[in-house]
Amino acid sequence: MLTREQFNAARQRTLEMFQKAGIRVTPEEEERIEVADFGLGDLERIGLEILTYVNTERVCAKELAMFPGQTCPEHRHPPVAGEPGKEETFRCRWGEVYLYVPGEAAKQPKAKIYPEHGKHLTVWHEVVLRPGEQYTLRPNTLHWFQAGPDGAIVSEFSTRSRDESDVFTDPRIEREPKVEGK
Amino acid sequence: MLTREQFNAARQRTLEMFQKAGIRVTPEEEERIEVADFGLGDLERIGLEILTYVNTERVCAKELAMFPGQTCPEHRHPPVAGEPGKEETFRCRWGEVYLYVPGEAAKQPKAKIYPEHGKHLTVWHEVVLRPGEQYTLRPNTLHWFQAGPDGAIVSEFSTRSRDESDVFTDPRIEREPKVEGK
Repeated sequence: MLTREQFNAARQRTLEMFQKAGIRVTPEEEERIEVADFGLGDLERIGLEILTYVNTERVCAKELAMFPGQTCPEHRHPPVAGEPGKEETFRCRWGEVYLYVPGEAAKQPKAKIYPEHGKHLTVWHEVVLRPGEQYTLRPNTLHWFQAGPDGAIVSEFSTRSRDESDVFTDPRIEREPKVEGK
Repeated sequence: MLTREQFNAARQRTLEMFQKAGIRVTPEEEERIEVADFGLGDLERIGLEILTYVNTERVCAKELAMFPGQTCPEHRHPPVAGEPGKEETFRCRWGEVYLYVPGEAAKQPKAKIYPEHGKHLTVWHEVVLRPGEQYTLRPNTLHWFQAGPDGAIVSEFSTRSRDESDVFTDPRIEREPKVEGK
């Protein structure tokens, strides 16, 4: 669980990153920024800050903010309700992000491997995304990603997000963020 | 038909607007920027500059650039191939855009009305979008939009784009851009 202080600090850092990247958000959106520590209590290393712009039955768009070296843990989006699973395009807007997908493993991955987390990573084909670069993931593809040394802002364009259906490789993970007093 | 010079100039202006707004694109994307005059030969007033980031069977994301007072003419996205038609979210990133949809008509619309074009506009409910503000259109909804005095950059998040199926109110319009020598 995140403390209220951790949550507020992470949201503030996210807003400062958006500002630096020229991404404008409304006051109402500022209040909706999600801080996910995936239940691991190690937000600086395993976590993600998310502003969902829209999430209808058919289309979803988000802005993801990642602190330096912060990692979104390995997961996939399985088929749900007769649909083929979420399809995602990640577009780097600012900073640098290392995305890992199935395929030939990187010999010297750019991502930092954190001791308790590394053993839950199984895909190692590396895609480096710099500003303006993007990658489209087919549904149900295992993937994880980590921000570079300055952090990253990544736009996600996708079909409907159903976070509660995501399948994480690390069995300790809880996708639903918990914040003290919320 | 656009001349080669008009086309190149419009693309260059689009790149300068992206730069001003902090939107990074790759050299390959620079070459893919579409300049649409809708066959009316009046690009400064009726036109749109488009960079399509991704357009799969399920998801599409674009960046739209609009010059000051430039207008995307009224149209709708009808059902195609058993699907309910394109659903679109417009998010203003930079500048200002006036979006018109069905509903109570604005008494004093902010958009400039151009003589030959105004008679082909039938929806007048006004939605003003400033940076960080957005609007989601249901499929098959008539709409048109015009940039404010500084121009605008608008992100579009949608289901698959099938431009060839769009239905325009103005019968003179040809959606497929034609450029001299291309």
